Amino acid sequence: MIWFTEYWTENVGLTVKATEVKKIKSKYQEILILETPEFGKMLVIDGLIQTTERDEYIYHEMLVHPGLLAHPNPERVLIIGGGDGGSVREALKHPSVKEVHLCEIDEEVIIAAEKYLPTISEKLRDPKVKIFIEDGNAFLEEKKNYYDVIFLDSSDPVGASEVLFSKEFYEKVKASLKKDGIMVAQTESPILQEEYFKKAISQIKKVFRNVGVYLAFVPTYPSGMWSFTIASDYIDVVNTKRPEKVKELKTKYFCDSIYDCLFSLPKFVQDIINKS
Amino acid sequence: MIWFTEYWTENVGLTVKATEVKKIKSKYQEILILETPEFGKMLVIDGLIQTTERDEYIYHEMLVHPGLLAHPNPERVLIIGGGDGGSVREALKHPSVKEVHLCEIDEEVIIAAEKYLPTISEKLRDPKVKIFIEDGNAFLEEKKNYYDVIFLDSSDPVGASEVLFSKEFYEKVKASLKKDGIMVAQTESPILQEEYFKKAISQIKKVFRNVGVYLAFVPTYPSGMWSFTIASDYIDVVNTKRPEKVKELKTKYFCDSIYDCLFSLPKFVQDIINKS
Repeated sequence: MIWFTEYWTENVGLTVKATEVKKIKSKYQEILILETPEFGKMLVIDGLIQTTERDEYIYHEMLVHPGLLAHPNPERVLIIGGGDGGSVREALKHPSVKEVHLCEIDEEVIIAAEKYLPTISEKLRDPKVKIFIEDGNAFLEEKKNYYDVIFLDSSDPVGASEVLFSKEFYEKVKASLKKDGIMVAQTESPILQEEYFKKAISQIKKVFRNVGVYLAFVPTYPSGMWSFTIASDYIDVVNTKRPEKVKELKTKYFCDSIYDCLFSLPKFVQDIINKS
Repeated sequence: MIWFTEYWTENVGLTVKATEVKKIKSKYQEILILETPEFGKMLVIDGLIQTTERDEYIYHEMLVHPGLLAHPNPERVLIIGGGDGGSVREALKHPSVKEVHLCEIDEEVIIAAEKYLPTISEKLRDPKVKIFIEDGNAFLEEKKNYYDVIFLDSSDPVGASEVLFSKEFYEKVKASLKKDGIMVAQTESPILQEEYFKKAISQIKKVFRNVGVYLAFVPTYPSGMWSFTIASDYIDVVNTKRPEKVKELKTKYFCDSIYDCLFSLPKFVQDIINKS
């Protein structure tokens, strides 16, 4: 029996029992696949829990659906990061989507997800999906004015992912979006990673005219309170009317009432955002 | 340096660094006061985190304010459990409240809170507050048709607190409430303690006509997703109009937008409730 602890900060962590550990050393990072009685299979990169079979639907549904519903007719979607495939799977639930590009820097993440996490990665070989093993930053240079929605499904802003939280990067994302395009980024925990959260929001605000922040309960992420930021120049992403198609989505967390209350935040989170 | 782990289940726990530990053995339980770099002072009873200086406001605000705002003129309030005093402090923020009774079975919890957690326990000696060191179940027998709002600020439904989650107990609570009274109970984590959660909801539904469930992010409680259940026979607690006085409350989590979206739940939580 193994006890794995992810240290959320120097002073607190989540401790999870594992019965089996597979370790993969890639060019970029250390990938673990843990078999855990509580959460099923768990993907860990450089010591940080990325996704688990049991609760992955929360993060993936909440990253993907608000952005695709805020856009009137999303056809071309880009996901940067997200090699496990969960965001791809959710994006393909929208019939208007014709093309999903996945730009993942580390092929080993995809290989591990396809081998060990079939319910998460199941749509990676869908004909609408094209996988690019590339650095997201470099990839965006080649695709200008192309996407309807871009998702930043990155790991924490340390190491390889740090650049994905900079103003310069958000500007590149914007240039790769069409005029009425939408960006959605995971933006860390407002309560345990307030500095990362503030930094991301403040940089995104400098680049996009309409910015909204929303939260979801993700038990295996630091503090359990996770944030996402949706942004667009052209679309007033915070005030879109709920489309009928929300009801047609097969989801377990996201639903009408989550859509309607997406931007209702606790006071202290509003305060951080207003000061960012 | 000590690392303390609260095991949320057999297979997952929260691990917190502590620099100092005070241990108190009471007649009922083992009380720890941990000094932690992440959360400040932390109250632990029988191995379970009850409250911390850093995040206690979330639980206490969310337990107390919805119930006191749903009632048109709450004057008499009872808190069962809650010996740390956080719920008392929040209840006294409502000017209509004339009398707060705190019924705590274990005096040592109150003594420890007053000694080590002054910002939480600060209102326990307010002239409006009366403390009863008694078993909640026995206490209710003597107070019929008396309270406007009763809060069940109990620990988990194991040991001394198990009875506080039974239909018989909810019936006693109802008998102690006035006709238009309201009960609010903490009802565990829907995601890691689904069985407790279901049981509480199903019993409360048998006793009260109007029942609403809401959630809050509590980083130091199992899964970070915590539930509360508000119930009343006479008041339609789920459909009250937001009173103006929400804005006057000095709070850090609870606010207008939390009030407006209180009962907007993730789909899987709605599903559990509907089946309870």
